[in-house]
Amino acid sequence: MGSTIPVIDQYLSQPDAFHPGVSLDNVIFSFHDHQLKILLIQLKGLHQWALPGGFIFKEEEVEQAAARILTGRTGLTDVFLQQFHVFSQRTRTLATMTRTMLEEEGHQLPKGHWLEQRFLTIGLYALVQYERVRPKPDEFSVACCWYDLNQLPELIFDHREIIQKALDSLRRHLNYQPVGYTLLPKEFPLKSLQAIYETILDRRLERSNFNRKILSYNILDRKDKLYTGASNKAPYLYSFNEERYFQALKQGLDKAF
Amino acid sequence: MGSTIPVIDQYLSQPDAFHPGVSLDNVIFSFHDHQLKILLIQLKGLHQWALPGGFIFKEEEVEQAAARILTGRTGLTDVFLQQFHVFSQRTRTLATMTRTMLEEEGHQLPKGHWLEQRFLTIGLYALVQYERVRPKPDEFSVACCWYDLNQLPELIFDHREIIQKALDSLRRHLNYQPVGYTLLPKEFPLKSLQAIYETILDRRLERSNFNRKILSYNILDRKDKLYTGASNKAPYLYSFNEERYFQALKQGLDKAF
Repeated sequence: MGSTIPVIDQYLSQPDAFHPGVSLDNVIFSFHDHQLKILLIQLKGLHQWALPGGFIFKEEEVEQAAARILTGRTGLTDVFLQQFHVFSQRTRTLATMTRTMLEEEGHQLPKGHWLEQRFLTIGLYALVQYERVRPKPDEFSVACCWYDLNQLPELIFDHREIIQKALDSLRRHLNYQPVGYTLLPKEFPLKSLQAIYETILDRRLERSNFNRKILSYNILDRKDKLYTGASNKAPYLYSFNEERYFQALKQGLDKAF
Repeated sequence: MGSTIPVIDQYLSQPDAFHPGVSLDNVIFSFHDHQLKILLIQLKGLHQWALPGGFIFKEEEVEQAAARILTGRTGLTDVFLQQFHVFSQRTRTLATMTRTMLEEEGHQLPKGHWLEQRFLTIGLYALVQYERVRPKPDEFSVACCWYDLNQLPELIFDHREIIQKALDSLRRHLNYQPVGYTLLPKEFPLKSLQAIYETILDRRLERSNFNRKILSYNILDRKDKLYTGASNKAPYLYSFNEERYFQALKQGLDKAF
Protein backbone atom coordinates (compact mmCIF):
# COMPACT_ATOMS: atom_id res chain seq x y z
CA MET A 1 0.00 0.00 0.00
CA GLY A 2 1.34 3.50 -0.70
CA SER A 3 3.88 4.30 -3.31
CA THR A 4 7.02 5.89 -1.93
CA ILE A 5 9.53 4.77 0.69
CA PRO A 6 8.87 7.55 3.24
CA VAL A 7 5.25 6.43 3.55
CA ILE A 8 6.18 3.49 5.78
CA ASP A 9 7.52 5.87 8.39
CA GLN A 10 4.56 8.17 8.10
CA TYR A 11 2.18 5.27 8.76
CA LEU A 12 3.78 4.85 12.15
CA SER A 13 4.93 8.28 13.19
CA GLN A 14 2.61 10.73 11.47
CA PRO A 15 -0.87 9.25 11.38
CA ASP A 16 -2.19 12.81 11.26
CA ALA A 17 -0.81 13.13 7.72
CA PHE A 18 -3.64 10.90 6.47
CA HIS A 19 -7.39 11.18 6.34
CA PRO A 20 -8.54 8.92 9.20
CA GLY A 21 -10.39 5.65 8.84
CA VAL A 22 -10.42 5.52 5.03
CA SER A 23 -8.28 3.68 2.50
CA LEU A 24 -8.68 3.12 -1.21
CA ASP A 25 -8.15 0.18 -3.51
CA ASN A 26 -7.50 0.36 -7.24
CA VAL A 27 -8.83 -2.40 -9.50
CA ILE A 28 -6.52 -1.90 -12.50
CA PHE A 29 -7.77 -3.59 -15.66
CA SER A 30 -5.84 -4.17 -18.86
CA PHE A 31 -6.42 -6.29 -21.95
CA HIS A 32 -3.81 -8.66 -23.35
CA ASP A 33 -3.80 -11.92 -25.25
CA HIS A 34 -7.61 -11.87 -25.59
CA GLN A 35 -8.02 -11.61 -21.79
CA LEU A 36 -8.94 -8.99 -19.24
CA LYS A 37 -6.15 -8.76 -16.64
CA ILE A 38 -5.96 -7.29 -13.15
CA LEU A 39 -2.83 -5.92 -11.51
CA LEU A 40 -2.17 -7.49 -8.10
CA ILE A 41 0.56 -7.24 -5.50
CA GLN A 42 1.82 -9.89 -3.11
CA LEU A 43 2.47 -8.45 0.32
CA LYS A 44 5.62 -9.27 2.27
CA GLY A 45 5.06 -12.04 4.79
CA LEU A 46 1.64 -12.97 3.37
CA HIS A 47 0.90 -15.61 0.77
CA GLN A 48 -2.29 -13.89 -0.34
CA TRP A 49 -2.40 -11.26 -3.03
CA ALA A 50 -4.01 -7.84 -2.82
CA LEU A 51 -5.24 -4.94 -4.88
CA PRO A 52 -2.79 -2.03 -5.02
CA GLY A 53 -4.21 0.43 -2.51
CA GLY A 54 -3.23 2.95 0.09
CA PHE A 55 -4.25 5.90 2.18
CA ILE A 56 -5.32 9.44 1.41
CA PHE A 57 -3.13 12.32 2.54
CA LYS A 58 -5.13 15.08 4.18
CA GLU A 59 -4.33 17.50 1.37
CA GLU A 60 -5.38 15.03 -1.35
CA GLU A 61 -8.77 14.36 -2.91
CA VAL A 62 -9.75 10.72 -3.43
CA GLU A 63 -8.91 10.73 -7.15
CA GLN A 64 -5.52 12.34 -6.54
CA ALA A 65 -4.57 9.69 -3.99
CA ALA A 66 -5.73 6.92 -6.32
CA ALA A 67 -3.72 8.40 -9.20
CA ARG A 68 -0.60 8.69 -7.01
CA ILE A 69 -0.90 5.05 -5.95
CA LEU A 70 -1.58 3.91 -9.50
CA THR A 71 1.45 5.80 -10.81
CA GLY A 72 3.58 4.09 -8.19
CA ARG A 73 2.59 0.60 -9.38
CA THR A 74 2.40 1.21 -13.14
CA GLY A 75 4.57 4.19 -14.01
CA LEU A 76 1.55 5.66 -15.82
CA THR A 77 0.12 9.11 -15.35
CA ASP A 78 -3.15 10.48 -16.75
CA VAL A 79 -5.08 7.23 -16.39
CA PHE A 80 -8.84 6.68 -16.56
CA LEU A 81 -9.97 6.15 -12.95
CA GLN A 82 -13.55 5.75 -11.77
CA GLN A 83 -14.95 5.39 -8.24
CA PHE A 84 -17.48 2.60 -7.94
CA HIS A 85 -18.23 1.68 -4.30
CA VAL A 86 -17.33 2.14 -0.64
CA PHE A 87 -16.84 -1.09 1.32
CA SER A 88 -17.60 -0.83 5.01
CA GLN A 89 -17.95 -4.23 6.65
CA ARG A 90 -17.69 -3.83 10.39
CA THR A 91 -14.78 -6.28 10.56
CA ARG A 92 -12.60 -4.38 8.08
CA THR A 93 -9.48 -3.75 10.15
CA LEU A 94 -6.04 -3.65 8.59
CA ALA A 95 -4.27 -4.46 11.88
CA THR A 96 -3.28 -8.10 11.28
CA MET A 97 -2.07 -7.53 7.75
CA THR A 98 -0.19 -4.37 8.64
CA ARG A 99 1.42 -5.92 11.69
CA THR A 100 2.73 -8.82 9.63
CA MET A 101 4.10 -6.54 6.94
CA LEU A 102 5.74 -4.18 9.40
CA GLU A 103 7.37 -6.99 11.35
CA GLU A 104 8.87 -8.27 8.10
CA GLU A 105 10.49 -4.85 7.81
CA GLY A 106 11.67 -4.78 11.44
CA HIS A 107 8.96 -2.33 12.55
CA GLN A 108 6.27 -2.70 15.19
CA LEU A 109 2.68 -1.53 15.05
CA PRO A 110 2.07 0.27 18.35
CA LYS A 111 -0.88 -0.97 20.41
CA GLY A 112 -3.95 1.20 19.84
CA HIS A 113 -2.54 2.57 16.56
CA TRP A 114 -5.16 4.04 14.20
CA LEU A 115 -4.60 1.17 11.78
CA GLU A 116 -6.39 -1.09 14.29
CA GLN A 117 -9.71 0.67 13.67
CA ARG A 118 -12.32 -0.39 11.13
CA PHE A 119 -11.36 1.02 7.73
CA LEU A 120 -13.75 2.01 5.01
CA THR A 121 -12.18 1.48 1.62
CA ILE A 122 -13.14 3.34 -1.54
CA GLY A 123 -12.98 1.14 -4.66
CA LEU A 124 -11.86 2.69 -7.94
CA TYR A 125 -11.32 0.95 -11.22
CA ALA A 126 -8.68 1.98 -13.74
CA LEU A 127 -8.45 1.05 -17.41
CA VAL A 128 -4.93 1.00 -18.84
CA GLN A 129 -3.10 -0.22 -21.91
CA TYR A 130 -1.21 -3.38 -21.05
CA GLU A 131 1.78 -2.55 -23.23
CA ARG A 132 2.43 0.75 -21.44
CA VAL A 133 2.70 -0.70 -17.92
CA ARG A 134 5.88 -1.79 -16.16
CA PRO A 135 4.46 -3.35 -12.97
CA LYS A 136 6.48 -2.36 -9.93
CA PRO A 137 6.14 -3.69 -6.35
CA ASP A 138 6.09 -1.15 -3.53
CA GLU A 139 8.02 -1.31 -0.27
CA PHE A 140 5.40 -3.63 1.28
CA SER A 141 5.24 -6.15 -1.53
CA VAL A 142 7.46 -8.79 -3.05
CA ALA A 143 5.66 -8.99 -6.38
CA CYS A 144 3.41 -6.95 -8.64
CA CYS A 145 1.98 -8.58 -11.75
CA TRP A 146 -0.99 -9.15 -14.01
CA TYR A 147 -3.45 -11.95 -13.37
CA ASP A 148 -6.10 -13.23 -15.72
CA LEU A 149 -9.50 -12.26 -14.42
CA ASN A 150 -10.51 -15.93 -14.64
CA GLN A 151 -7.49 -17.23 -12.74
CA LEU A 152 -7.15 -15.03 -9.71
CA PRO A 153 -4.96 -16.19 -6.80
CA GLU A 154 -6.07 -16.19 -3.15
CA LEU A 155 -6.85 -12.61 -2.14
CA ILE A 156 -6.85 -10.85 1.24
CA PHE A 157 -9.93 -9.49 3.02
CA ASP A 158 -12.81 -8.64 0.75
CA HIS A 159 -10.62 -7.99 -2.29
CA ARG A 160 -12.33 -10.66 -4.38
CA GLU A 161 -15.67 -9.01 -3.63
CA ILE A 162 -14.18 -5.63 -4.58
CA ILE A 163 -13.05 -7.04 -7.95
CA GLN A 164 -16.48 -8.56 -8.57
CA LYS A 165 -18.16 -5.25 -7.79
CA ALA A 166 -15.71 -3.45 -10.10
CA LEU A 167 -16.68 -5.80 -12.90
CA ASP A 168 -20.39 -5.32 -12.21
CA SER A 169 -19.85 -1.57 -12.39
CA LEU A 170 -17.80 -1.83 -15.58
CA ARG A 171 -20.64 -3.83 -17.14
CA ARG A 172 -23.10 -1.07 -16.33
CA HIS A 173 -20.70 1.66 -17.44
CA LEU A 174 -19.85 -0.06 -20.71
CA ASN A 175 -22.16 2.16 -22.75
CA TYR A 176 -21.13 5.41 -21.09
CA GLN A 177 -17.42 5.20 -20.38
CA PRO A 178 -14.53 4.98 -22.86
CA VAL A 179 -13.85 1.36 -21.97
CA GLY A 180 -12.53 0.05 -25.28
CA TYR A 181 -10.70 3.31 -25.96
CA THR A 182 -8.71 3.21 -22.73
CA LEU A 183 -7.93 -0.53 -22.79
CA LEU A 184 -6.86 -0.88 -26.43
CA PRO A 185 -3.85 0.46 -28.29
CA LYS A 186 -4.51 3.20 -30.84
CA GLU A 187 -5.19 0.71 -33.65
CA PHE A 188 -6.86 -2.64 -33.10
CA PRO A 189 -8.83 -5.33 -34.89
CA LEU A 190 -12.57 -5.49 -34.15
CA LYS A 191 -12.16 -8.90 -32.58
CA SER A 192 -10.16 -7.35 -29.72
CA LEU A 193 -13.00 -4.96 -28.98
CA GLN A 194 -15.44 -7.87 -29.18
CA ALA A 195 -13.35 -9.88 -26.70
CA ILE A 196 -13.47 -6.98 -24.23
CA TYR A 197 -17.24 -6.80 -24.54
CA GLU A 198 -17.54 -10.57 -24.16
CA THR A 199 -15.42 -10.65 -21.01
CA ILE A 200 -17.18 -7.75 -19.36
CA LEU A 201 -20.67 -8.95 -20.35
CA ASP A 202 -19.65 -12.52 -19.49
CA ARG A 203 -21.24 -14.05 -22.57
CA ARG A 204 -20.34 -14.89 -26.16
CA LEU A 205 -21.38 -12.46 -28.87
CA GLU A 206 -22.01 -13.39 -32.46
CA ARG A 207 -19.23 -11.80 -34.57
CA SER A 208 -21.12 -10.35 -37.51
CA ASN A 209 -23.84 -9.02 -35.26
CA PHE A 210 -21.29 -7.34 -32.98
CA ASN A 211 -19.43 -5.84 -35.95
CA ARG A 212 -22.60 -4.51 -37.54
CA LYS A 213 -23.78 -2.86 -34.33
CA ILE A 214 -20.48 -1.34 -33.25
CA LEU A 215 -19.84 0.01 -36.75
CA SER A 216 -23.36 1.48 -36.92
CA TYR A 217 -22.41 4.00 -34.22
CA ASN A 218 -19.98 5.57 -36.69
CA ILE A 219 -17.38 5.95 -33.95
CA LEU A 220 -14.64 3.83 -35.53
CA ASP A 221 -12.33 4.80 -38.39
CA ARG A 222 -11.11 1.96 -40.58
CA LYS A 223 -7.39 2.07 -41.32
CA ASP A 224 -5.90 1.22 -44.69
CA LYS A 225 -3.36 -1.24 -43.46
CA LEU A 226 -4.29 -4.78 -42.59
CA TYR A 227 -4.02 -6.45 -39.23
CA THR A 228 -0.93 -8.64 -39.31
CA GLY A 229 -1.85 -10.89 -36.39
CA ALA A 230 -2.69 -14.55 -36.91
CA SER A 231 -5.95 -14.68 -38.79
CA ASN A 232 -6.91 -16.13 -42.12
CA LYS A 233 -9.31 -13.26 -42.67
CA ALA A 234 -6.64 -10.53 -42.31
CA PRO A 235 -9.22 -8.02 -41.07
CA TYR A 236 -8.74 -4.29 -41.03
CA LEU A 237 -7.45 -2.36 -38.08
CA TYR A 238 -9.66 0.33 -36.60
CA SER A 239 -9.20 3.31 -34.33
CA PHE A 240 -11.72 5.35 -32.36
CA ASN A 241 -12.80 8.62 -33.91
CA GLU A 242 -12.39 10.60 -30.71
CA GLU A 243 -14.80 13.40 -31.52
CA ARG A 244 -17.68 11.16 -32.55
CA TYR A 245 -16.90 8.57 -29.85
CA PHE A 246 -17.05 10.96 -26.92
CA GLN A 247 -20.14 12.61 -28.37
CA ALA A 248 -21.83 9.20 -28.64
CA LEU A 249 -20.88 8.25 -25.06
CA LYS A 250 -22.78 11.28 -23.76
CA GLN A 251 -26.00 9.73 -25.10
CA GLY A 252 -24.89 6.19 -24.29
CA LEU A 253 -24.14 3.41 -26.77
CA ASP A 254 -27.50 1.91 -26.09
CA LYS A 255 -27.91 -0.83 -28.64
CA ALA A 256 -28.15 -4.28 -27.13
CA PHE A 257 -25.31 -6.60 -28.03
CA MET B 1 -28.00 15.61 10.18
CA GLY B 2 -28.66 12.54 12.34
CA SER B 3 -32.09 11.30 13.21
CA THR B 4 -32.66 11.01 16.96
CA ILE B 5 -32.36 13.51 19.80
CA PRO B 6 -29.47 11.82 21.66
CA VAL B 7 -27.24 12.24 18.59
CA ILE B 8 -26.68 15.94 19.29
CA ASP B 9 -25.00 15.09 22.58
CA GLN B 10 -22.98 12.32 21.03
CA TYR B 11 -21.60 14.69 18.41
CA LEU B 12 -20.04 16.73 21.19
CA SER B 13 -19.28 14.29 23.93
CA GLN B 14 -18.70 10.93 22.24
CA PRO B 15 -16.93 11.53 18.96
CA ASP B 16 -15.53 8.01 19.28
CA ALA B 17 -19.02 6.64 18.66
CA PHE B 18 -18.72 7.60 14.99
CA HIS B 19 -16.48 6.57 12.16
CA PRO B 20 -14.02 9.47 11.85
CA GLY B 21 -13.82 11.89 8.96
CA VAL B 22 -16.75 10.53 6.95
CA SER B 23 -20.37 11.62 6.59
CA LEU B 24 -23.07 10.60 4.19
CA ASP B 25 -25.76 12.47 2.27
CA ASN B 26 -28.99 10.98 0.95
CA VAL B 27 -30.48 12.29 -2.29
CA ILE B 28 -34.07 11.15 -1.84
CA PHE B 29 -36.08 11.20 -5.08
CA SER B 30 -39.82 10.84 -5.45
CA PHE B 31 -42.26 11.43 -8.29
CA HIS B 32 -45.40 13.52 -7.92
CA ASP B 33 -47.52 15.72 -10.16
CA HIS B 34 -45.45 14.78 -13.24
CA GLN B 35 -42.23 15.95 -11.53
CA LEU B 36 -39.18 14.40 -9.89
CA LYS B 37 -38.84 15.78 -6.37
CA ILE B 38 -35.98 15.84 -3.88
CA LEU B 39 -36.36 15.88 -0.09
CA LEU B 40 -34.45 18.76 1.53
CA ILE B 41 -34.08 20.10 5.04
CA GLN B 42 -33.54 23.65 6.21
CA LEU B 43 -31.02 23.83 9.01
CA LYS B 44 -31.61 25.94 12.09
CA GLY B 45 -29.87 29.31 11.84
CA LEU B 46 -29.07 28.91 8.15
CA HIS B 47 -31.14 30.13 5.23
CA GLN B 48 -29.71 27.53 2.87
CA TRP B 49 -31.17 24.08 2.46
CA ALA B 50 -29.35 20.76 2.67
CA LEU B 51 -29.62 17.10 1.82
CA PRO B 52 -30.62 14.92 4.77
CA GLY B 53 -27.35 13.40 5.90
CA GLY B 54 -25.43 12.36 8.97
CA PHE B 55 -22.64 10.30 10.39
CA ILE B 56 -21.87 6.61 10.55
CA PHE B 57 -21.77 4.89 13.92
CA LYS B 58 -18.73 2.64 14.31
CA GLU B 59 -20.91 -0.45 14.44
CA GLU B 60 -22.84 0.50 11.29
CA GLU B 61 -22.10 -0.17 7.64
CA VAL B 62 -22.63 2.71 5.21
CA GLU B 63 -25.99 1.41 3.97
CA GLN B 64 -27.26 0.87 7.51
CA ALA B 65 -26.42 4.43 8.49
CA ALA B 66 -28.04 5.78 5.32
CA ALA B 67 -31.19 3.73 5.99
CA ARG B 68 -31.36 4.94 9.62
CA ILE B 69 -31.09 8.58 8.50
CA LEU B 70 -33.63 8.07 5.74
CA THR B 71 -36.10 6.47 8.13
CA GLY B 72 -35.72 9.47 10.42
CA ARG B 73 -36.74 11.94 7.69
CA THR B 74 -39.38 9.89 5.89
CA GLY B 75 -40.76 7.30 8.28
CA LEU B 76 -40.04 4.68 5.61
CA THR B 77 -38.12 1.47 6.09
CA ASP B 78 -36.93 -0.95 3.43
CA VAL B 79 -36.11 1.71 0.85
CA PHE B 80 -34.08 1.38 -2.34
CA LEU B 81 -30.70 3.03 -1.58
CA GLN B 82 -27.70 3.14 -3.89
CA GLN B 83 -24.21 4.58 -3.31
CA PHE B 84 -22.99 6.70 -6.20
CA HIS B 85 -19.91 8.79 -5.28
CA VAL B 86 -17.57 9.99 -2.54
CA PHE B 87 -17.00 13.75 -2.43
CA SER B 88 -13.65 14.80 -1.05
CA GLN B 89 -12.85 18.44 -1.80
CA ARG B 90 -10.06 19.60 0.47
CA THR B 91 -12.18 22.44 1.81
CA ARG B 92 -15.04 20.19 2.96
CA THR B 93 -15.22 21.05 6.66
CA LEU B 94 -18.51 21.05 8.55
CA ALA B 95 -17.23 23.40 11.25
CA THR B 96 -19.00 26.65 10.29
CA MET B 97 -22.33 25.00 9.66
CA THR B 98 -22.16 22.86 12.78
CA ARG B 99 -21.11 25.77 14.98
CA THR B 100 -24.08 27.84 13.78
CA MET B 101 -26.52 25.01 14.37
CA LEU B 102 -25.16 24.18 17.79
CA GLU B 103 -25.22 27.80 18.92
CA GLU B 104 -28.89 27.96 17.94
CA GLU B 105 -29.38 25.10 20.38
CA GLY B 106 -27.31 26.70 23.13
CA HIS B 107 -24.32 24.38 22.60
CA GLN B 108 -20.73 25.23 21.72
CA LEU B 109 -18.41 23.40 19.35
CA PRO B 110 -15.16 22.94 21.27
CA LYS B 111 -12.01 24.28 19.57
CA GLY B 112 -10.17 21.49 17.77
CA HIS B 113 -13.26 19.26 17.70
CA TRP B 114 -13.20 16.50 15.08
CA LEU B 115 -15.97 18.22 13.16
CA GLU B 116 -13.41 20.88 12.17
CA GLN B 117 -11.49 18.41 9.99
CA ARG B 118 -12.08 17.85 6.29
CA PHE B 119 -15.00 15.44 5.86
CA LEU B 120 -15.44 13.01 3.02
CA THR B 121 -19.10 12.48 2.29
CA ILE B 122 -20.59 9.39 0.68
CA GLY B 123 -23.49 10.19 -1.63
CA LEU B 124 -26.40 7.73 -1.85
CA TYR B 125 -29.60 8.13 -3.78
CA ALA B 126 -32.93 6.74 -2.63
CA LEU B 127 -36.07 6.18 -4.66
CA VAL B 128 -39.33 6.38 -2.72
CA GLN B 129 -43.04 6.65 -3.35
CA TYR B 130 -44.17 10.21 -2.70
CA GLU B 131 -47.49 9.19 -1.19
CA ARG B 132 -45.86 7.06 1.50
CA VAL B 133 -43.62 9.79 2.94
CA ARG B 134 -44.43 12.09 5.84
CA PRO B 135 -41.42 14.46 5.76
CA LYS B 136 -40.13 15.17 9.24
CA PRO B 137 -37.44 17.68 10.29
CA ASP B 138 -34.71 16.48 12.65
CA GLU B 139 -33.43 18.28 15.73
CA PHE B 140 -31.11 20.46 13.62
CA SER B 141 -33.65 21.59 11.08
CA VAL B 142 -36.72 23.82 10.98
CA ALA B 143 -38.22 22.33 7.83
CA CYS B 144 -38.18 19.17 5.75
CA CYS B 145 -39.99 19.13 2.44
CA TRP B 146 -40.04 18.17 -1.22
CA TYR B 147 -38.61 20.45 -3.87
CA ASP B 148 -39.06 20.17 -7.60
CA LEU B 149 -35.79 19.13 -9.17
CA ASN B 150 -36.08 22.11 -11.49
CA GLN B 151 -36.72 24.63 -8.72
CA LEU B 152 -34.16 23.92 -6.05
CA PRO B 153 -33.49 26.52 -3.35
CA GLU B 154 -30.02 27.73 -2.35
CA LEU B 155 -28.05 24.76 -1.02
CA ILE B 156 -25.11 24.49 1.38
CA PHE B 157 -21.58 23.37 0.44
CA ASP B 158 -21.41 21.12 -2.59
CA HIS B 159 -24.96 19.78 -2.18
CA ARG B 160 -26.04 21.04 -5.61
CA GLU B 161 -23.11 19.17 -7.15
CA ILE B 162 -24.07 16.05 -5.16
CA ILE B 163 -27.63 16.24 -6.56
CA GLN B 164 -26.33 16.68 -10.11
CA LYS B 165 -24.04 13.68 -9.70
CA ALA B 166 -26.94 11.63 -8.30
CA LEU B 167 -28.98 12.47 -11.39
CA ASP B 168 -26.09 11.55 -13.70
CA SER B 169 -25.81 8.22 -11.90
CA LEU B 170 -29.55 7.63 -12.05
CA ARG B 171 -29.43 8.25 -15.81
CA ARG B 172 -26.76 5.59 -16.19
CA HIS B 173 -28.54 3.18 -13.84
CA LEU B 174 -31.90 3.62 -15.53
CA ASN B 175 -31.61 0.37 -17.46
CA TYR B 176 -30.33 -1.71 -14.54
CA GLN B 177 -32.08 -0.48 -11.43
CA PRO B 178 -35.80 -0.69 -10.55
CA VAL B 179 -36.25 3.06 -11.00
CA GLY B 180 -39.85 3.18 -12.18
CA TYR B 181 -40.83 0.39 -9.83
CA THR B 182 -39.57 2.14 -6.70
CA LEU B 183 -40.86 5.61 -7.62
CA LEU B 184 -44.37 4.71 -8.77
CA PRO B 185 -47.38 3.37 -6.87
CA LYS B 186 -48.38 -0.20 -7.60
CA GLU B 187 -50.62 0.78 -10.53
CA PHE B 188 -49.86 3.68 -12.82
CA PRO B 189 -50.57 5.01 -16.32
CA LEU B 190 -47.77 4.67 -18.87
CA LYS B 191 -47.48 8.43 -19.10
CA SER B 192 -46.20 8.56 -15.51
CA LEU B 193 -43.42 6.14 -16.38
CA GLN B 194 -42.68 8.17 -19.49
CA ALA B 195 -42.46 11.38 -17.42
CA ILE B 196 -39.90 9.71 -15.13
CA TYR B 197 -37.79 8.68 -18.11
CA GLU B 198 -38.07 12.15 -19.63
CA THR B 199 -36.98 13.90 -16.45
CA ILE B 200 -34.04 11.59 -15.82
CA LEU B 201 -32.93 11.58 -19.46
CA ASP B 202 -33.61 15.32 -19.63
CA ARG B 203 -35.31 15.16 -23.03
CA ARG B 204 -38.78 14.69 -24.47
CA LEU B 205 -39.74 11.21 -25.69
CA GLU B 206 -42.31 10.51 -28.35
CA ARG B 207 -45.28 8.83 -26.67
CA SER B 208 -46.12 5.99 -29.05
CA ASN B 209 -42.44 5.15 -29.48
CA PHE B 210 -41.94 5.05 -25.70
CA ASN B 211 -45.04 2.91 -25.18
CA ARG B 212 -44.05 0.46 -27.90
CA LYS B 213 -40.54 -0.02 -26.52
CA ILE B 214 -41.42 -0.27 -22.85
CA LEU B 215 -44.23 -2.74 -23.62
CA SER B 216 -41.92 -4.83 -25.81
CA TYR B 217 -39.91 -5.85 -22.72
CA ASN B 218 -42.96 -7.72 -21.50
CA ILE B 219 -42.39 -6.46 -17.95
CA LEU B 220 -45.70 -4.64 -17.51
CA ASP B 221 -49.11 -6.17 -16.80
CA ARG B 222 -52.09 -4.25 -18.09
CA LYS B 223 -54.94 -3.89 -15.58
CA ASP B 224 -58.58 -4.15 -16.49
CA LYS B 225 -59.67 -0.96 -14.89
CA LEU B 226 -59.15 2.39 -16.55
CA TYR B 227 -57.08 5.26 -15.28
CA THR B 228 -59.47 7.79 -13.83
CA GLY B 229 -57.12 10.80 -13.89
CA ALA B 230 -57.71 13.72 -16.25
CA SER B 231 -57.20 12.42 -19.76
CA ASN B 232 -59.47 12.24 -22.73
CA LYS B 233 -57.87 8.96 -23.76
CA ALA B 234 -58.66 7.19 -20.45
CA PRO B 235 -55.61 4.91 -20.80
CA TYR B 236 -55.15 1.68 -18.93
CA LEU B 237 -53.27 1.36 -15.71
CA TYR B 238 -50.24 -0.94 -15.57
CA SER B 239 -48.20 -2.64 -12.90
CA PHE B 240 -44.74 -4.17 -13.05
CA ASN B 241 -44.60 -7.94 -13.38
CA GLU B 242 -42.02 -8.38 -10.66
CA GLU B 243 -40.60 -11.69 -11.83
CA ARG B 244 -40.08 -10.66 -15.43
CA TYR B 245 -39.02 -7.12 -14.50
CA PHE B 246 -36.18 -8.15 -12.18
CA GLN B 247 -35.09 -10.80 -14.64
CA ALA B 248 -34.94 -8.19 -17.42
CA LEU B 249 -32.97 -5.75 -15.25
CA LYS B 250 -30.21 -8.34 -14.87
CA GLN B 251 -29.59 -8.09 -18.61
CA GLY B 252 -30.34 -4.39 -18.74
CA LEU B 253 -33.25 -2.72 -20.52
CA ASP B 254 -31.00 -1.78 -23.36
CA LYS B 255 -33.28 -0.42 -26.04
CA ALA B 256 -32.64 3.23 -26.82
CA PHE B 257 -35.52 5.55 -26.01
